[in-house]
Amino acid sequence: MKPLPDLPSFDAAMRACLGERGWLTSPEDTAAQSRDWLDRYGKPPLGLARPASTEEVAAVVRLCAAHGVPVVPQGGNTGLNGGSVAGDGGGVIVSLARMNRILSVDAVDFTATVEAGVVLGALHEALADRDLAFPMHLGAEGSAQVGGLIGTNAGGSHAMRFGMMQDLVLGLEVVLPDGTIWDGARALIKDNTGYQLRRLFCGAEGTLGIVTKAVLRLFPAPCGRSAALLALADFDAAQRVGALLRARAGEFLSAVEFFGELGLALALAHVEGLARPLETAGPVYVLVEIASSIPGIALDDILENALAAAFEQGDVLDGTIAASEAQRVAFWRLREEMPEGQRLEGCQIKHDVSVPVARLAAFIVDASRAAEAVMPGVRVNPFGHLGDGNVHFNLSPPKGDADFDGLETALSQAVYEAAVRHGGSIAAEHGLGQAKVELADRFRSETERALMRRIKVALDPHAIMNPGKVVKV
Amino acid sequence: MKPLPDLPSFDAAMRACLGERGWLTSPEDTAAQSRDWLDRYGKPPLGLARPASTEEVAAVVRLCAAHGVPVVPQGGNTGLNGGSVAGDGGGVIVSLARMNRILSVDAVDFTATVEAGVVLGALHEALADRDLAFPMHLGAEGSAQVGGLIGTNAGGSHAMRFGMMQDLVLGLEVVLPDGTIWDGARALIKDNTGYQLRRLFCGAEGTLGIVTKAVLRLFPAPCGRSAALLALADFDAAQRVGALLRARAGEFLSAVEFFGELGLALALAHVEGLARPLETAGPVYVLVEIASSIPGIALDDILENALAAAFEQGDVLDGTIAASEAQRVAFWRLREEMPEGQRLEGCQIKHDVSVPVARLAAFIVDASRAAEAVMPGVRVNPFGHLGDGNVHFNLSPPKGDADFDGLETALSQAVYEAAVRHGGSIAAEHGLGQAKVELADRFRSETERALMRRIKVALDPHAIMNPGKVVKV
Repeated sequence: MKPLPDLPSFDAAMRACLGERGWLTSPEDTAAQSRDWLDRYGKPPLGLARPASTEEVAAVVRLCAAHGVPVVPQGGNTGLNGGSVAGDGGGVIVSLARMNRILSVDAVDFTATVEAGVVLGALHEALADRDLAFPMHLGAEGSAQVGGLIGTNAGGSHAMRFGMMQDLVLGLEVVLPDGTIWDGARALIKDNTGYQLRRLFCGAEGTLGIVTKAVLRLFPAPCGRSAALLALADFDAAQRVGALLRARAGEFLSAVEFFGELGLALALAHVEGLARPLETAGPVYVLVEIASSIPGIALDDILENALAAAFEQGDVLDGTIAASEAQRVAFWRLREEMPEGQRLEGCQIKHDVSVPVARLAAFIVDASRAAEAVMPGVRVNPFGHLGDGNVHFNLSPPKGDADFDGLETALSQAVYEAAVRHGGSIAAEHGLGQAKVELADRFRSETERALMRRIKVALDPHAIMNPGKVVKV
Repeated sequence: MKPLPDLPSFDAAMRACLGERGWLTSPEDTAAQSRDWLDRYGKPPLGLARPASTEEVAAVVRLCAAHGVPVVPQGGNTGLNGGSVAGDGGGVIVSLARMNRILSVDAVDFTATVEAGVVLGALHEALADRDLAFPMHLGAEGSAQVGGLIGTNAGGSHAMRFGMMQDLVLGLEVVLPDGTIWDGARALIKDNTGYQLRRLFCGAEGTLGIVTKAVLRLFPAPCGRSAALLALADFDAAQRVGALLRARAGEFLSAVEFFGELGLALALAHVEGLARPLETAGPVYVLVEIASSIPGIALDDILENALAAAFEQGDVLDGTIAASEAQRVAFWRLREEMPEGQRLEGCQIKHDVSVPVARLAAFIVDASRAAEAVMPGVRVNPFGHLGDGNVHFNLSPPKGDADFDGLETALSQAVYEAAVRHGGSIAAEHGLGQAKVELADRFRSETERALMRRIKVALDPHAIMNPGKVVKV
């Protein structure tokens, strides 16, 4: 923790503004939120601000702007790219954790108005009693906050059906870089009173302002679900099965996820309470879920018929429909423990990329070959979202090796180049944070970089808001 | 048509760039596209550019920028607010009509890549053979072009289920105000490589650049539909029925439209081939349609059960489920002829507003009272999209009166103020164009105006692109 001899008036002003509970500077109090959860990023901050209201957030930003202190907005701090902790310039971390009220839920409007610090899992729970759903589902939902999900434009497993955060946000309240409050928290599906500011702040990772409140779209809660786990010969088959499900399961198709034999083996080896789901071993697995929000839909029949067609065209080696809710949950747990299994195996490199759905199989084959060419024996563990083309293309060193022998950069370069060759993106749903800005600049065109810089400079001319993230200015 | 004695070199350069077919300046050649289709807006342009490629669009923009000539992008010119014709500064109209190729359709990806001049109806037809659908439906679809739909962030009748244009656009190619080409035509659902530029250009009405190409999201084509027309006692009942349908028809609910007895009477009086659909006369009508993209769903039963519940709760006076495709089409025609019926009645004032769905009934009652207070006897004809809160709150003068007796401004003010009082927007799906910019500035906060101005200035510092539209700088 850097001392503050040069900033005593700033420190005093922050304390006066936020009180003892709202302004923490001791290393013990700030340690947990100073570093990202993989403990890879985070310069020591000047302090941790914990405002309790939009007005307090605005006051913090005004103080920081006046003193030239960078502002680093933080939600649940579950990000993988260091977006919610300080970069080289240090600064103040502004945690929204105390702003965690669900302000209203409207069952006619199908909207919820929430403070940015509401945890996704808590929102799910609050809605469950009311037969309503907010259809954003991801591994970190027990910690991830709405503001962070908006900042990174999160996707998750149901994005193919319900969209990403930007598709689920109707209105926003944002504290801008000069401390003024933009009240755009309207509950409107159709609102074209000028530029779509509500969409621009989604995915901006707090570099254009701090989201303090959001009006979210809700949906009727699912009242029936059917899920299946399939074993397939390769990713080409997985892609064909995905297209077939899209056609045969229609509007019920909520998620089509995939993982491979290596990922399953690592999860089974390292994570308690998992069991091999099928007699046939992969090499590729697909988890499909369909759901309806009204009763009386024969979901099991619909899924069975679709899978029968997939069997008939020779694309499925083995498969089973979940016979119970417990089995459905068990299927999902396998998919969700992929990251944990690989983490516990040891050293790894994560890549969050996306390609057009039609290129997914070709990309995985191509990227695997490219990685193998850089480091023979490197273990490739791709898993993710078949339904929207989002691949977490993660690597472990060759069996028996402790690390990547200095080849990390070359491996990542090979993976990202493959994604771009297939018309893809090097940042699908985890954002850029501080980890991927320079990388992104290697793949973004000069025109695109210039557009983003212009927007950043226009809205944050003094580069106060989360500097060094998303775009360099 | 303004002569060009001061701009001979510009004229020669445009001709050299675009050829005889691509650069038209005679009044006969430019008349139809110089004025909006209600013939209310459009200063004489210097000429009409009809580029045939993105490179030609870029060359036109560079020439205009070099000569300080405003650029007015134009799609199907079906807008109601003068967005696609010249304002006071004149300029060059750039029609995308020749760029009308569907470049590719991908049935695995569920995407179509199209040039901006593709007409929506032509896209529907091209997809029909392939069991795919682009779910944007609106009255002007026989003329409206993809680029214009993106520019205005169009909504239409199915937005409640499938979203607006910004939700249906995955990637864009845009010619920027300095003539450079931004190639963002990626076919990715998840792409967070920086700010969401693809969303920012949706609804910008060509003020930040000219959209030349788009990658659109497709869906499986509906293979079954069921529709019903209901008569209800008032808008409160309509709102309750809408909520009930949302809960009971779940993911099948594609559209919930409404109109009133006056709108029906005007359509029946003036438009050929319409028939009164129910024995009971309104006063409020709701048209509901549900659809599925897979066979075997008992849509009629689902709709019947939902409507039975609505009858039971006393909200429906009369109603019928379409017994045939012809009857379904006839129901839709009633709804779609609302604007034509009122236009043929004579003088009118149109308002395109939206409110939260839960406020729709209260807004209509409130706005009707406010309009009546300004002009006793004024005839109120609200119709539109119950499912998303979008009301076309249109007025005709009192029966027997030829016009509004100079009260147009006061009437509009009353309607817009009511919309804002109910948390609504004064521009839902028709954009601002040149008609509503000053109006919008009366209702947008200073903070919001400043944000929009900053974006405009950042991307178009010389105010070349469609000046006077969306935001004043």
